[in-house]
Amino acid sequence: MNVMVDLCIVPLGEGTSLSKYIAECTRILRGNGLKTTLHGFGTIIEGDWDEVFDSIKQCHLALHNELGVERITTTIKLGTRTDKAQSAEDKVNAVERLLSKP
Amino acid sequence: MNVMVDLCIVPLGEGTSLSKYIAECTRILRGNGLKTTLHGFGTIIEGDWDEVFDSIKQCHLALHNELGVERITTTIKLGTRTDKAQSAEDKVNAVERLLSKP
Amino acid sequence: MNVMVDLCIVPLGEGTSLSKYIAECTRILRGNGLKTTLHGFGTIIEGDWDEVFDSIKQCHLALHNELGVERITTTIKLGTRTDKAQSAEDKVNAVERLLSKP
Amino acid sequence: MNVMVDLCIVPLGEGTSLSKYIAECTRILRGNGLKTTLHGFGTIIEGDWDEVFDSIKQCHLALHNELGVERITTTIKLGTRTDKAQSAEDKVNAVERLLSKP
Repeated sequence: MNVMVDLCIVPLGEGTSLSKYIAECTRILRGNGLKTTLHGFGTIIEGDWDEVFDSIKQCHLALHNELGVERITTTIKLGTRTDKAQSAEDKVNAVERLLSKP
Repeated sequence: MNVMVDLCIVPLGEGTSLSKYIAECTRILRGNGLKTTLHGFGTIIEGDWDEVFDSIKQCHLALHNELGVERITTTIKLGTRTDKAQSAEDKVNAVERLLSKP
Repeated sequence: MNVMVDLCIVPLGEGTSLSKYIAECTRILRGNGLKTTLHGFGTIIEGDWDEVFDSIKQCHLALHNELGVERITTTIKLGTRTDKAQSAEDKVNAVERLLSKP
Repeated sequence: MNVMVDLCIVPLGEGTSLSKYIAECTRILRGNGLKTTLHGFGTIIEGDWDEVFDSIKQCHLALHNELGVERITTTIKLGTRTDKAQSAEDKVNAVERLLSKP
């Protein structure tokens, strides 16, 4: 089963700059061969359900065990569908097409 | 690794009443021995990371394959921490204690 | 327009214990006459759209200006419907009724 | 107070294709002069708190009253900070800079 995920990992008590932690997670996700796209509030991940969620677990473990983060709060949006295959890019393009009509 | 999850599963294109789908997911989660608490916008689940996420996958599969849902959009909040063990009930109680002080 | 909101306010860089901040927000929300219910991952708020969102803004301002929080990341789920009136308690009860059937 | 919002509006019971509704919301947001960026799971909006939330309310009202949607469930992530000004693009660039280092 394929899944599209929007991942937002937030370490608590680690100051107000989180880019170091997001970069570490992005390295893990891309290192696992997952397609990722960063946006202003998270990372879109597209792939196989098990691979995506195993990778998210790896992110939590790396932040706790390697970067010393004591508490993490994460928000995930995820979509699955059986009616058709659709990439994140397809979703944006479908809206842009409608917006470009007079 | 233990995890606390707030799960909100939303089938699309299946009318405006979703209780049937939430009930099915709750049966799956409880059938897997997970501690669950329903609230007005989701279900709190407490347990082992792998068991929780395997169960969430089972919910998606059941909605697609048994209840015929074509598209699902799900929101998950999840927390992990290494500084102390804390249940969902502990979290609420910690706030209530502060509120009860004069 | 009535709205049901699930509010989860997270101050960043303020340590791993957040109950003090949640309690302050709960005081503001209740002080404004809103119906609130705490759960393990947030607070359910039911009320008029403008009153609810004005109160959430007050929470952000109080955390920044009175409690000295430099950065806040908040997750809100919100529902509006025109087909019927339904409280958070109604939603939970609708699921529990289905679960109690043999 | 400026705010960065990640908005994901989901009409229930309106089929599995939602692009029509997202396009209508995007027209409203842009028509109000807000900076918006579409991604695979929502829309990043940057602007003044009151203008952003008034516009989100307009989106709900338009979907209910003009497009006939009976139930909407929306997820919003929002960030405010007092330590520095930072755009959604700045956030992505900060992570990309770290990722480009050897």
